[in-house]
Amino acid sequence: MTRQRIMSGMRPTGTLHLGNYFGALENWVKLQNEYECFFSIVDWHGLTTGYEDTSEFRDNIMEIAIDWLSAGLNPEKCTIFIQSNVKEIAELHLLLSMIVPLSWLERCPTYKEQLSQLTEKNITTYGFLGYPNLMAADILIHKGNFVPVGEDQQPQLELAREIARRFNYIYGDTFPEPQGKMTKIKVLPGLDGRKMSKSYSNTIALSDSPDTIREKIRKMITDAEKIKKNDPGHPDICAVYAFHKVFSEETHQETYEVCKTGGIGCVQCKKTLAENVVRYMAPMYERRQKLIGNKKIILEVLIEGTRHAREVAKETIEEVREKMKLMELE
Amino acid sequence: MTRQRIMSGMRPTGTLHLGNYFGALENWVKLQNEYECFFSIVDWHGLTTGYEDTSEFRDNIMEIAIDWLSAGLNPEKCTIFIQSNVKEIAELHLLLSMIVPLSWLERCPTYKEQLSQLTEKNITTYGFLGYPNLMAADILIHKGNFVPVGEDQQPQLELAREIARRFNYIYGDTFPEPQGKMTKIKVLPGLDGRKMSKSYSNTIALSDSPDTIREKIRKMITDAEKIKKNDPGHPDICAVYAFHKVFSEETHQETYEVCKTGGIGCVQCKKTLAENVVRYMAPMYERRQKLIGNKKIILEVLIEGTRHAREVAKETIEEVREKMKLMELE
Repeated sequence: MTRQRIMSGMRPTGTLHLGNYFGALENWVKLQNEYECFFSIVDWHGLTTGYEDTSEFRDNIMEIAIDWLSAGLNPEKCTIFIQSNVKEIAELHLLLSMIVPLSWLERCPTYKEQLSQLTEKNITTYGFLGYPNLMAADILIHKGNFVPVGEDQQPQLELAREIARRFNYIYGDTFPEPQGKMTKIKVLPGLDGRKMSKSYSNTIALSDSPDTIREKIRKMITDAEKIKKNDPGHPDICAVYAFHKVFSEETHQETYEVCKTGGIGCVQCKKTLAENVVRYMAPMYERRQKLIGNKKIILEVLIEGTRHAREVAKETIEEVREKMKLMELE
Repeated sequence: MTRQRIMSGMRPTGTLHLGNYFGALENWVKLQNEYECFFSIVDWHGLTTGYEDTSEFRDNIMEIAIDWLSAGLNPEKCTIFIQSNVKEIAELHLLLSMIVPLSWLERCPTYKEQLSQLTEKNITTYGFLGYPNLMAADILIHKGNFVPVGEDQQPQLELAREIARRFNYIYGDTFPEPQGKMTKIKVLPGLDGRKMSKSYSNTIALSDSPDTIREKIRKMITDAEKIKKNDPGHPDICAVYAFHKVFSEETHQETYEVCKTGGIGCVQCKKTLAENVVRYMAPMYERRQKLIGNKKIILEVLIEGTRHAREVAKETIEEVREKMKLMELE
C-alpha cells in the first residue's frame, strides 16, 4: 500500500529560529516517518510579497536547506525541493487559474489581511491575488492528501480543496481533496516573552552556537518582583519558565515549585535552562557542523529531491492535460 | 545580422475562413519572408473563455495547422507551434504576474468588453482576468519585436509593452518593447454583406472545395433593385462587388461601371466572381489536398516548430531567472 502524501513548504526568508522549529519543523521530522512527504522551498511564493528585492533568495534557500537538514529532515525519508525548479507547478497554476472564480481569491481572508498590513509594499499585483491558487497548485501537483496547518491557514487549505473539487467536477476525478492535519504544537515564546519573531530580535536561531544560546538565555529578563534569590517568583508569567516547560520535561514541575517558594534564584534557574536547551539542540548543532561549508552535500540533496518532485509532478500534469483534452506532442 | 522577430497567434476555435485569411493570415505569409516569425496556436488562451468544453481542442489544433499551411505558411521559413507545449510560457506568465498591478488588467478594455458580452459563460475567473498577462508572456518569451495588430488589439499590446518596461526597470534590461505592426488589411465582408463570421453562417471556409465556393457565391443575394439583367445596379452596397474588389483586381473597375449602367446581369457577375475566387484559392486548395489525410506531416511540422519555440523560450527563461536571481539547480 502506498503511503499517503503530505505536502508543506516554507518561503526562503532567512535563517529559522526555535519558533519556526516548534511551529512546524519538529512536526515535519515526525511526519516523514509515517507519510510520503514533500517539503518545498517556495521561492515563487517569496516573490508575491518580495519581488522587488530578490538579492538574498539564493543564500536564503541554502540557509533554509541547512536548517531543515539540521533539524532532522532526512532526505532518505522525505523529498526536499525548490518550488521554482518544478515548472509543472507553474503550468498547473495556469491551468487551475482558468477555472478559479476571481471571487474565491478576493474573499480569501489572508489576502485582505496582508493587503492592509503590508501597506509599505506594492503588492496589489496579479500574482499576489493568485497566491492561494499557486498554493493549491503546490499541493495538487503532488496529489497531497494532507497538509499540516495551523488555525490561520485553514481558509487557504479550504480554497485548495474547493479548487480540487471544481477541477474534478469539470474534468473528472483527478485530485484527492487535501485535508488539514492539525498538530499539537509546543508553544515557545520569544526570549522576552512576546511571540518569537526576527523582527523583535528575541529569537534563538537554529544556527546559534551553544555559547550564543547560553549568552542569550543568561540575558533573559526574569520576574521583576523576584529581586533577591530567595524572593518567591511567578513562573506563570516568566518567559524562562515557559522555556523550561518545553526544554526541561522532567524537572519543570519541580522548578515551578521551587521558584514559587523562593527556593532557587533566577541566575541558577537560567543556567539550568541554558544547559537543557543546549543539550536539546545538540543533535541539530552536530548535524549542522557537518553540513556547513559543504555546499556540495546540500546541493545534492536539493538536486535529488527536486528531480523526484519533478517526476511526480510530470505524472500529474500529464494526467491533468489528458483530462482537459489538451494536445500533447511527442 | 539577426532578423527581427514577429510573434502572433490564433486560438484553436475551428476551421478558418476568408475573413481570417485577409484579416491576418495573408499578412503572416508575407511577413515570414522578412522576419523571424513565431506563430502560436494558443490553446491556453482558448481555455480562458472555453474551459468548460475542451472536447474539440485537439481536432481544432489539427484543423488550424492545416489551414495555416494551406494558406501558405512555410515551416521552413517560420515557426509554427502549440502554446501549451511550451511550458516556459506558463512559467513566464507566473513570474510576470508578480510584478503586474491588478489595476492594469482590470482596466484592459477587452476585459471589460468581453465580460459584458459573454454573459452566458462563466468567465469571471482568475485566468480570464490574466489573459493580457499571458499574452505578454507569449510575446516576451520569444522576445518579439513586432506584433501584427488590428486597431482593437492595441490596448493589449500596450499592456505587454508596459509589462516589458516594468520588468526591465526592476530587474535590468531584458525584453525589447514589442511594437505593433499595423497592416493594410483587405476588408472582405461575409456572403450576406455583414461581417464574415461563423456565427452568421456567411463564410467561405479556407477548406471549401471549388464547387462549394461556386455554390455559395451563386446563392449570394444581390442588389434588390436590380431585378432584370439590364437594370442599373448599386455596386457600392453590393456584397458581390465587395468581393470583386478583393478577387478581381484587374477587372473590378470595369465591373463597377457595367453594373452601374446595367451592362451585366447578377448571375453572370457572380459566375465571373466565383471563378476568380476559385482561381485565387487554387494554390491553397492544392496544398490542402496534399496535407489532408496526412496527419503525420502536420504533426511533424508541429513537433519541429514546438521544439524550436521551446529552445528559444528556454534561453529567455534562463535569462529571466538569472535576472530575478532565482536559484537554478543543475
